[in-house]
Amino acid sequence: MHGMAPSDSAKTGTLAPTITRPRVVILGAGFGGLNAAQALRSAPVDVTVIDRRNYHLFQPLLYQVATAGLSPAQIATPIRRILARQKNATVLMDRVLDVDLERRLVITRQREVPYDYLIVATGARHAYFGHDEWEAFAPGLKKIDDATALRTRILAAFERAEVTEDEAERKRLLTFVVIGAGPTGVEMAGAIAELAKMGIARDFRNIDPRQAEILLVEAGPRILASFPDSLSQAAQRQLERLGVKLVLGEAVVACDADGIALKDGRRIDSGTLVWAAGVEASPAAKWLKAPADRAGRVIVAPDLRLPGYPNVFVIGDTAAVKDAAGIAVPGIAPAAKQMGRFAANEIIASIKGKPPRDFTYRDYGNLATIGRKAAVADFGRFRFSGLIAWLLWSFAHVWFLIGFRNRFTVFFDWIWAYVTYQRGARLITGGEN
Amino acid sequence: MHGMAPSDSAKTGTLAPTITRPRVVILGAGFGGLNAAQALRSAPVDVTVIDRRNYHLFQPLLYQVATAGLSPAQIATPIRRILARQKNATVLMDRVLDVDLERRLVITRQREVPYDYLIVATGARHAYFGHDEWEAFAPGLKKIDDATALRTRILAAFERAEVTEDEAERKRLLTFVVIGAGPTGVEMAGAIAELAKMGIARDFRNIDPRQAEILLVEAGPRILASFPDSLSQAAQRQLERLGVKLVLGEAVVACDADGIALKDGRRIDSGTLVWAAGVEASPAAKWLKAPADRAGRVIVAPDLRLPGYPNVFVIGDTAAVKDAAGIAVPGIAPAAKQMGRFAANEIIASIKGKPPRDFTYRDYGNLATIGRKAAVADFGRFRFSGLIAWLLWSFAHVWFLIGFRNRFTVFFDWIWAYVTYQRGARLITGGEN
Repeated sequence: MHGMAPSDSAKTGTLAPTITRPRVVILGAGFGGLNAAQALRSAPVDVTVIDRRNYHLFQPLLYQVATAGLSPAQIATPIRRILARQKNATVLMDRVLDVDLERRLVITRQREVPYDYLIVATGARHAYFGHDEWEAFAPGLKKIDDATALRTRILAAFERAEVTEDEAERKRLLTFVVIGAGPTGVEMAGAIAELAKMGIARDFRNIDPRQAEILLVEAGPRILASFPDSLSQAAQRQLERLGVKLVLGEAVVACDADGIALKDGRRIDSGTLVWAAGVEASPAAKWLKAPADRAGRVIVAPDLRLPGYPNVFVIGDTAAVKDAAGIAVPGIAPAAKQMGRFAANEIIASIKGKPPRDFTYRDYGNLATIGRKAAVADFGRFRFSGLIAWLLWSFAHVWFLIGFRNRFTVFFDWIWAYVTYQRGARLITGGEN
Repeated sequence: MHGMAPSDSAKTGTLAPTITRPRVVILGAGFGGLNAAQALRSAPVDVTVIDRRNYHLFQPLLYQVATAGLSPAQIATPIRRILARQKNATVLMDRVLDVDLERRLVITRQREVPYDYLIVATGARHAYFGHDEWEAFAPGLKKIDDATALRTRILAAFERAEVTEDEAERKRLLTFVVIGAGPTGVEMAGAIAELAKMGIARDFRNIDPRQAEILLVEAGPRILASFPDSLSQAAQRQLERLGVKLVLGEAVVACDADGIALKDGRRIDSGTLVWAAGVEASPAAKWLKAPADRAGRVIVAPDLRLPGYPNVFVIGDTAAVKDAAGIAVPGIAPAAKQMGRFAANEIIASIKGKPPRDFTYRDYGNLATIGRKAAVADFGRFRFSGLIAWLLWSFAHVWFLIGFRNRFTVFFDWIWAYVTYQRGARLITGGEN
């Protein structure tokens, strides 16, 4: 028997009075939620983590699964495994339907879960700006299944190109379009280019994968808009060296089974579209009946609390927040982790009767990778691109991967891929062909 | 440009006379088909391998994917990667619809592929003895997607049991039924028992996974019927030590969403059924308009040729054959490999004008694994069970896994799992929850 479940004490039949400890419920086990739970490890509270998936995902490497470099299990770990030894933590795999703020209940598909403190960290998903019908043609990249579905599309395009006897169709199948040139779009375009030009270049007979066209389409004037201009330029040069073609300042006005249409009237025929153009927050604002920004993020004060409900925190990509210094907190993993730890510490302080404080975001820099020996790194005064940035990026990502085992196998797979140019997870799964 | 594809010579525009080499078409890249292709490496033929999947699967370890021990990419390798350096081999990912024996054409979904020699090695799939409606409730285990779907079912059963507040439902969710006690059924039952009793035992709060019931149901009088009686007995003891309950001599008469019904009228409520009770051959007999046995296998003579068509070979699980010594060739990987190499050598001999020979099966022994330090091994005069058999099994399987990289990572994962009792791929994927 483990933990403090009600059935245990019922079974042992003790007459001791139940010591009620504050119940902290955390919605979502991404970077924010998981760091909050872990920061409550020694606190006199009962923690319940609710997530509709059973795994914590190291999302920054998801594009590697989508391009056959890593296996899903290398970047995802069961949430309950991570928290197995934290005696005050319970994990429930369930879908949140609503929150009753007055009765302090989380309503899930299977039950109602009472809380004294609530941390909402349900993250974001890709958004199509009112064109949800595009999702079927241009899938995004947020969970494992997205990544394996994209992997299947990308690899199957080469396979179909090898089989077909129709030249136009072959050209269409060998054209890949990535929409949106933020970090995810840049990573995907670079990784598809490396897959085509190096990883599988010698494996076909009727096609030459090196002839594949990889287009990166961006509505804004430059790629990686969150980076300084000089690093955008450097990233652009590195992408072009990999053979990626940039289409800048062009909005996509249609996605369909045969390709995309651009605002200027051009059509690009393509067999594989990847959506990396935008995200919107989970439905948390609806559950909390709270005001949200255009991306659906709950607007919270620098104390990360829901206005009027000092026991409810909103963190990570679910929150739109300016910190104590007036800085808009970015939607990246380090920010979510910091907010998770902050919310946990505020709960501990609140139990001790201390007043609320404001969150201050610490900016440790910004990294984006493009491909083999190609990346950009922005640490304010220090900026790097190329090999040094790529080494920084590689070590940072392996380091932050949860669990020794995954760290080791990812490291091994990367060394192997570096030496052989091979990608280890080239499997077309799902559906029949 | 690579290889000898027609488009290449068209592009280079050479006027040299086309040297027509015999075209060997191989349907299916399992153990039989792949070994046939590789045995033709230096032969003066053009080889085309057609498979509807892009990977060769090391099927004997598929149960490890279904029970979260290994990742799909560790036991599957792209077919075209394996054959990348074999200049006379082309791989097409396509679905075979029919064979035109008179015009010597394979008809696929996308094209017609002419052949001079044909090797049919399309394998087998699970069979429900006329109850195909059972498949939705009791899925089998033949391809990667079967394994990841089963993994999701097994892991989700524990997750749902943790969340539910209904005691009867919890008991049902913690009951696992494996139907059929051949090697696959024994492996599955043993692996589910190890997962529940060791791998995840400490990760839950409201349930104790060690209380899970794992039932192995078999219509025949004993498990592992293809092994000598003494090894069946040994395997049975090892399974029972792992906590698996055996239900022998009981046919399943119904499978539904809530469990199974047995012939004697008993019902077993269960949240997870696994089908390991039977296979049937692929539709090859239909394509070839050839007589088949009860399991759908094409009946061929000891020369492995389709009667009346000396240029058409049927091998592996697709064939029902008694070899030159009158021994029924078993449906296992080593037999398929031998038949693949035999067919390739017969084609080489035929090109040289030599007469057909008969196939002789070489029995190198029979292995089945049950769990940690538990297995049985039958080498005729020498029989082993327990630790020695398990070590033999482990080394044989790591050895035969294709590719150094997979061999290394599987080996590492096993050592890791052995030391920590952890299973590395506990991901619930596919569908939303």
